[in-house]
Amino acid sequence: MSPDSSNLREPVFAIPFDLPGIGEGQRTAALHRQLRDAIIDGRLAAGERLPSSRRAAEALGVARKTVVAAYDLLIAEGYVLPRPGARAAVADIAARRASRTGPLEARARSELIAPAWRTPPPRHAQAVPLPERSFRTGVPEHRFFPHDAWRRLSARAWRQWSKRPFGYPPVEGVPALREAIAQHVAFSRAVACNGDEVVVTSGAQNAFDLLARLLVEPGRTRVAVESPGYPTLRQAFAAAGALVVPVPVDDEGLRVDLLPKDVRVVCVTPSHQSPTGVALSMRRRAALLAHAREHDAVIVEDDYDGEFRYSGRPLDALQTLDRDARVFYVGTFSKSLFPAIDTGFVVAPAWARASLAAVKRMGDSHAPGPLQETLAAFIREGHLARHVRRMTPIYAQRREVLLEALEGGLRRWFAPIPSIAGLHLAARIDPAADARAVFDALRRHAPGAQTAAEYSLQADALQAAVFGYAVIDADDIREALARLARALSR
Amino acid sequence: MSPDSSNLREPVFAIPFDLPGIGEGQRTAALHRQLRDAIIDGRLAAGERLPSSRRAAEALGVARKTVVAAYDLLIAEGYVLPRPGARAAVADIAARRASRTGPLEARARSELIAPAWRTPPPRHAQAVPLPERSFRTGVPEHRFFPHDAWRRLSARAWRQWSKRPFGYPPVEGVPALREAIAQHVAFSRAVACNGDEVVVTSGAQNAFDLLARLLVEPGRTRVAVESPGYPTLRQAFAAAGALVVPVPVDDEGLRVDLLPKDVRVVCVTPSHQSPTGVALSMRRRAALLAHAREHDAVIVEDDYDGEFRYSGRPLDALQTLDRDARVFYVGTFSKSLFPAIDTGFVVAPAWARASLAAVKRMGDSHAPGPLQETLAAFIREGHLARHVRRMTPIYAQRREVLLEALEGGLRRWFAPIPSIAGLHLAARIDPAADARAVFDALRRHAPGAQTAAEYSLQADALQAAVFGYAVIDADDIREALARLARALSR
Repeated sequence: MSPDSSNLREPVFAIPFDLPGIGEGQRTAALHRQLRDAIIDGRLAAGERLPSSRRAAEALGVARKTVVAAYDLLIAEGYVLPRPGARAAVADIAARRASRTGPLEARARSELIAPAWRTPPPRHAQAVPLPERSFRTGVPEHRFFPHDAWRRLSARAWRQWSKRPFGYPPVEGVPALREAIAQHVAFSRAVACNGDEVVVTSGAQNAFDLLARLLVEPGRTRVAVESPGYPTLRQAFAAAGALVVPVPVDDEGLRVDLLPKDVRVVCVTPSHQSPTGVALSMRRRAALLAHAREHDAVIVEDDYDGEFRYSGRPLDALQTLDRDARVFYVGTFSKSLFPAIDTGFVVAPAWARASLAAVKRMGDSHAPGPLQETLAAFIREGHLARHVRRMTPIYAQRREVLLEALEGGLRRWFAPIPSIAGLHLAARIDPAADARAVFDALRRHAPGAQTAAEYSLQADALQAAVFGYAVIDADDIREALARLARALSR
Repeated sequence: MSPDSSNLREPVFAIPFDLPGIGEGQRTAALHRQLRDAIIDGRLAAGERLPSSRRAAEALGVARKTVVAAYDLLIAEGYVLPRPGARAAVADIAARRASRTGPLEARARSELIAPAWRTPPPRHAQAVPLPERSFRTGVPEHRFFPHDAWRRLSARAWRQWSKRPFGYPPVEGVPALREAIAQHVAFSRAVACNGDEVVVTSGAQNAFDLLARLLVEPGRTRVAVESPGYPTLRQAFAAAGALVVPVPVDDEGLRVDLLPKDVRVVCVTPSHQSPTGVALSMRRRAALLAHAREHDAVIVEDDYDGEFRYSGRPLDALQTLDRDARVFYVGTFSKSLFPAIDTGFVVAPAWARASLAAVKRMGDSHAPGPLQETLAAFIREGHLARHVRRMTPIYAQRREVLLEALEGGLRRWFAPIPSIAGLHLAARIDPAADARAVFDALRRHAPGAQTAAEYSLQADALQAAVFGYAVIDADDIREALARLARALSR
């Protein structure tokens, strides 16, 4: 392959080769791989000339075409440079010799990651593993879910999908699901909307993230959040560059009277405040809508577990009362169905829809079409409503048992905070009690129970415990809280 | 319900009621609803006193307890204020009387949406509807997909899932899928990694969005993108606040020699440049890695359709050659399997993984656990590799037919740009030709074909056409391009 290949004084390879005895193809591959490795790890130095194919073939005892083929591969890959009128030389592939454990490892975090993410925000407390039956919040009961119906509809959706050409689902969600959600919220929460107003999201957290990016001008927009309040909603707005303003909560919910006039966005959980569980009173709802109108703010209404209600009539959703297109209503199926579905939605005012879709397109997080079709059919055929109807009395009984224990054997330490909905209950800790001791006892005897402080941004955090009752039986509640009472009495 | 209810001179309602003839409960509901509507629309003014329940009952011809019940509901809701020692009065619910068509609708876009989103970026050109068989890019062929295997594995995954308690999948993805992906890329792309290094994303776009938020300090970080290059990747980095720097592409791929020294991130498509289709030469790969090391930058390697290769050996992925932990390798299953799966992944350096997971947690976009398990099994059982092996010759034949037409009847207008992989082919338009006329003819006779200009950030955009051949048969290609040739000859 080079004119001076007949020169017998040229050096042969200084490196050993291990070539298979049979199969030119295999010998070519082996020779190529071994030469390449030698070049990469520097045993064949940059600029070093390769022996001619004839000479190499002799030295290695292989056919010349084997060497030529291996050389050609190396040349094609740029490991070897062909030089007209001279023997090919090893290319200078400096990058390949750089150590994988360069100085970067140490510097990287501080230099190459955006400041906002250099120290990742802590995971939500519930990311820590817990026993299957516990007081954890945020996860519903799985044992009464209509799995057969779900699997049947899932199989049907994938079957129908298999007959259609491939494509990307609409960024706002598949029409059938948006319609089903509109009917569901109209029925269950008197949220009047049609499918066009619904944007399907990857769960409520994705909705918060999208709304934060939609509504926050980094470093400028002030956003009011409940304190105590849901931490990862707060984190989503902070990550978007919002100036987060904590606003206290009392037994009527958000202290609307304490809302600064310059907040552009107010995030609130009216049905079942997270974590205290109180409902935003009708007076406060009217005041909040008036405040938003007067000071030109929008409201993010987080209705995460409002489907499960234990008193007669629910209060109207803010979205229902809104006459001024200021409310973004966020719902999720993670509590009413199951978390793995990771599907939620935003009912958005018309003026924001195109931009919201654009934000969503950037992140491209849509549930697979067939899964959306499955959920749409599940809702349309009444399984969601039936499941909620079925679970409500089950959760209600657990809630009753929990209240009995708190107002009975534990009344010296706890005072339940009134609520009418949801899957968890909060209880104030008696100011006279030693909160530290109470929380220690909770950790030991009521795994999963949280402290309201975990939700708080304020120094004078509410001294309260938060008990989830969605994944624990009435008897387990009685037992655990009896143990808790005994431990505290000591 | 009030002490002076015996006063006969008190006014009765000034508004008419329509109450059902039978059923106290229904009469209560009707009275409650009609009173509430009258308060909301102002027919009953704020401060106006309600007649006593006795007087109202007489006037309406209903039982007194019916009126008392309706009043109590209104009081509970805050529509009516009870006043000790006096008759209840209509509350001032100003918010409810505000018009839904307030001044907001007009002002909103400009004032309440973050500047970045006030004018949504345009949808990718392919969002416009196209005939089923067309030259569109970005969507693979559905007719040869092993739907039965997929449905079987999907049913199995949901069945297994139904036996476990509910919970949230890990933010980085389910372990089985991360493992399967690691083995898949090691086998198909020589990308050496283990499951821990893989973060599952909602498609490649979600990966770009996460990396943009991870790596971009808004208003400061300079990010190099290929020009022409993939528009929505660019948009994701721009949306994160990056200063986007377009860098030209030639027949060896990205012009590494033109990379500014101050870019922190370089986004590149080495296997199959989007849209020109050229492969980044080995020399350029080495130079790019050297540049990144020298100037402390990281590389986002977008390998969106590299699985489909039509020449012998692929060039090594940048991730494979990287010895300095600077490459984020992004892959997707939208092309090798189907878009609706909306699942991609990032192979991330160790130093960035915790922060990347934190960014992902904010957006909470994880594919449902059972879908991830389905995909994991699909890969583990070899269906993915088999499907790619099966589709490659099918796509290769279409590609051949496309090349024949471009180099044959269309050679006066087009010069194909060399490429060795992927699902689309780009062809330069002869400088002597009237580009406008060519593009008009393309729109009419080659639906789905794009212009490279749609991908370009530069004024002197590459004059080229981009033909997808994934969803069009060889015969359709021949026919369409024959029509195109005839049209252009006129």
